[in-house]
Amino acid sequence: MKLGGHFFEDLGPGQRLINPVPRTVTEGDVALYIALTGDRNPKNCSAEFARSLGFARAPVHDLLVFHIVFGRTVGEISLNSPGNLGYADLRFLRPVFPGDTLRAETETLGWRETSKGDTGVVWVRTTGFNQRDERVLQFYRWVMVNKREPATPTGAVDAPAMPKEAERAHLHALPYPPFARFDASATGGARFWEDYAAGERLLHPQGMTIEEAEHQLATRLYQNTARVHFNQHQQQASRHGRRIIYGGHVISVAQALSFDGLENVIGMAAWNSGSHTNPTFAGDTLFAWTDVLEAIDIRRDDLGALRLRLVAVKNVDPSQQEVALMATDESGRERYAPAVVLDLEYVGLMPRRAVAG
Amino acid sequence: MKLGGHFFEDLGPGQRLINPVPRTVTEGDVALYIALTGDRNPKNCSAEFARSLGFARAPVHDLLVFHIVFGRTVGEISLNSPGNLGYADLRFLRPVFPGDTLRAETETLGWRETSKGDTGVVWVRTTGFNQRDERVLQFYRWVMVNKREPATPTGAVDAPAMPKEAERAHLHALPYPPFARFDASATGGARFWEDYAAGERLLHPQGMTIEEAEHQLATRLYQNTARVHFNQHQQQASRHGRRIIYGGHVISVAQALSFDGLENVIGMAAWNSGSHTNPTFAGDTLFAWTDVLEAIDIRRDDLGALRLRLVAVKNVDPSQQEVALMATDESGRERYAPAVVLDLEYVGLMPRRAVAG
Amino acid sequence: MKLGGHFFEDLGPGQRLINPVPRTVTEGDVALYIALTGDRNPKNCSAEFARSLGFARAPVHDLLVFHIVFGRTVGEISLNSPGNLGYADLRFLRPVFPGDTLRAETETLGWRETSKGDTGVVWVRTTGFNQRDERVLQFYRWVMVNKREPATPTGAVDAPAMPKEAERAHLHALPYPPFARFDASATGGARFWEDYAAGERLLHPQGMTIEEAEHQLATRLYQNTARVHFNQHQQQASRHGRRIIYGGHVISVAQALSFDGLENVIGMAAWNSGSHTNPTFAGDTLFAWTDVLEAIDIRRDDLGALRLRLVAVKNVDPSQQEVALMATDESGRERYAPAVVLDLEYVGLMPRRAVAG
Repeated sequence: MKLGGHFFEDLGPGQRLINPVPRTVTEGDVALYIALTGDRNPKNCSAEFARSLGFARAPVHDLLVFHIVFGRTVGEISLNSPGNLGYADLRFLRPVFPGDTLRAETETLGWRETSKGDTGVVWVRTTGFNQRDERVLQFYRWVMVNKREPATPTGAVDAPAMPKEAERAHLHALPYPPFARFDASATGGARFWEDYAAGERLLHPQGMTIEEAEHQLATRLYQNTARVHFNQHQQQASRHGRRIIYGGHVISVAQALSFDGLENVIGMAAWNSGSHTNPTFAGDTLFAWTDVLEAIDIRRDDLGALRLRLVAVKNVDPSQQEVALMATDESGRERYAPAVVLDLEYVGLMPRRAVAG
Repeated sequence: MKLGGHFFEDLGPGQRLINPVPRTVTEGDVALYIALTGDRNPKNCSAEFARSLGFARAPVHDLLVFHIVFGRTVGEISLNSPGNLGYADLRFLRPVFPGDTLRAETETLGWRETSKGDTGVVWVRTTGFNQRDERVLQFYRWVMVNKREPATPTGAVDAPAMPKEAERAHLHALPYPPFARFDASATGGARFWEDYAAGERLLHPQGMTIEEAEHQLATRLYQNTARVHFNQHQQQASRHGRRIIYGGHVISVAQALSFDGLENVIGMAAWNSGSHTNPTFAGDTLFAWTDVLEAIDIRRDDLGALRLRLVAVKNVDPSQQEVALMATDESGRERYAPAVVLDLEYVGLMPRRAVAG
Repeated sequence: MKLGGHFFEDLGPGQRLINPVPRTVTEGDVALYIALTGDRNPKNCSAEFARSLGFARAPVHDLLVFHIVFGRTVGEISLNSPGNLGYADLRFLRPVFPGDTLRAETETLGWRETSKGDTGVVWVRTTGFNQRDERVLQFYRWVMVNKREPATPTGAVDAPAMPKEAERAHLHALPYPPFARFDASATGGARFWEDYAAGERLLHPQGMTIEEAEHQLATRLYQNTARVHFNQHQQQASRHGRRIIYGGHVISVAQALSFDGLENVIGMAAWNSGSHTNPTFAGDTLFAWTDVLEAIDIRRDDLGALRLRLVAVKNVDPSQQEVALMATDESGRERYAPAVVLDLEYVGLMPRRAVAG
């Protein structure tokens, strides 16, 4: 890897990159994840509850696995990136436990120079592995990357199509053992899979203000070293004048806020698509809502799936006032409203009434 | 639980609430507790020293146990609380070790609407259990809770009497194995139980400034989600205009500061009473002093008890200048002086000279 | 120990101090170290990689060991210190693993009152031990310490000579098992010991802005309680008006930044000398460069040593503009330029080409 990380010119399609650095996940990471996000999923924080669901011990939070795998890829893909543009077809393939060591490989799938020519978009697929070389996670993402020589055209025009959603077959091979009883007193949630239907909107009641130290701690924990998150000296001269919060931290905070209303979502099976629609900065207060898009029968007696749209907004409380998702900008284009910072469509897993106990 | 947590109207007496979420305590939590408070008790941070006292390994800090048990209760009791008013008869009943899973149950004991009618006070007793359903902690607390419908009177007038102090019998059944030798070189403390007498005041020499990120990390670690600690967007419109620091974090910082002067206090047996007398905000620097109220012979050769009053103040250094505990407000009432943020009476455990080694 | 810590008058030469408090290092500390510094050394964060080098599991980061041993000594040596002046002949003697308990002993070697007479310099040698009383670390340092009675002369004039570098013999008895193969895909580094030569300067491309909460968390984690780092109330009245960041945190951040360019430095063998040349404050952005001073053949097939000079600067990016190390002050004296905050000469260990795999 070149000193200072890869630039757009280095990331032409067809490469398979072994991303350094392997990382053993520990109970220290798990505690920090809770401290940084406020997560309350008892599957991840109670060994007893995890065992009641058939796990040998408490698995590591899905999003912590995502962040660590993602972090591996930053040095080669997005160190010199002004922003991650989107995710597609992300699948959680196998539980990760404290003591497991994660590593990542990334294939470059396509690239396209922007019309201005100083940056470009790169499409990649990353796979995370554990120490037994078993796949634990895979996802597509596309990301803006700076050019080393902004004035020299690359002719890159190869923009691959991305999957519209995660493969449904994945939902029939989930890494969840069958369980006979779900103790809802551990989650405090009264609603089960059958109780949610497409069209419902859940306005999560809490808000969370993020500090510089918090997002920096989170992002470093994942060994994600992208410049825009840490280097105020550099950011001062940027368009925003400030460090930009790692979008993954926004996902984690929004997902933790969604516990109030979705207490019984015990895990994520997949993401269909996701976008960081506007940057988040220290001092912003995040709020979230969830739209139920679809209840999916995955042919299990214990578990059902919900296709959910998690939206995070900043500095406006959607449980107090209506917040528009889209707005028209000066040029008359429909865009995400400036307050909207995350639009994530994922598949959540929820116990069925039959196992309520 | 209702979306947005319980309000005063939901908390009438006679209920027994199973508080979600069970939480396994880990070495990650222990490290974070030290990083957040600066605690130096070798019983909690040295496996070797803990073993010299007869423990199988280092127990989890008493206050970390308290915070985690307390955190369980917030969703149902104090999510919509402007402030915790007091504690009584808190007892540490059993050591907690990393790997133990804590859960909580709370009984509602009484309620009284305030004269203004928009909020009320709720009295509860919480018990913390480990994974073997053994009681590890119990305490009374009373707390201000917002009403869902401030304009509709509830007629709640039932204010129960609280114990004046923790039951003394508890001091004769402490969860401390007998030990033959106390290695004071591990604590750096030269004084033993016999060396303290009622009337002494210890002015702890250090001060600690608290940042927003720090109290938020601590409070999230305990999965305490009370709004006032995290939501600056909401707090902007409040009387204080700022997030309020979780009072438990103030207790922990003050207790950690008290190490200088009370190096050999190896644990808390009980709290008799406690009040958060004024709010603490980010940027405040905390100082503390301890008044020795009583030396209690608990009929052990290795260990004695001290009844101690721990007072925390902000932005004034009691080792440099006299700080008044009480002040007269505009209406002529005696109140805690604005600088005083904590008044906690607890029973600390201290080795006796016979085991000094 | 006196309440409020030792002062200069207490620290005359010839004393051997048993420094409280023993501290068991855990995976929680390891995770926090990564979150606080962004360290990416796979020897320390991947159990798999550590095993490939012949360790039973991932050792604790050298600098985390240093900080914890150093932290033990603060109460007796530098609680009342306006600043640490220098280090000499620091040797990492034995790997430390999570679960090990560290303690420290410090000998006072010399003292000298400053010309102004209100403070003095104290020279000490500290040794860190594990629970088997094996030495894991030793170092010399000298530190400015306030006098209890600034107006009363002590006559202290005894300034011992410090070693100019760590004993070379140490490099032939390193605590690293021999290894047959070094998987550079784990570090992402393409260069081996033979690829570096004296005279090369590595401009590390990243920068890191430090927040108050971050350095306070780090410093408390090490149970280093020196006043200047935590007590804003006191610091307000000081020359700087602000809390001073623990110099060790600056070393850790600079060393973590040096990963880009020195990916294959798998550990520190020793420090020859080190100085905190100017204070660092919250809000400062740190950058670093490394000068290769010497390639040292340590008579191993798998491993070589590099004598390296790590320089950290603040608020100026040496990869973007030339930064002078020295500057002339008003009185015409050559001093470290105000932007230079660290000058550390250490011996790093690097695999040789023969084991590249």
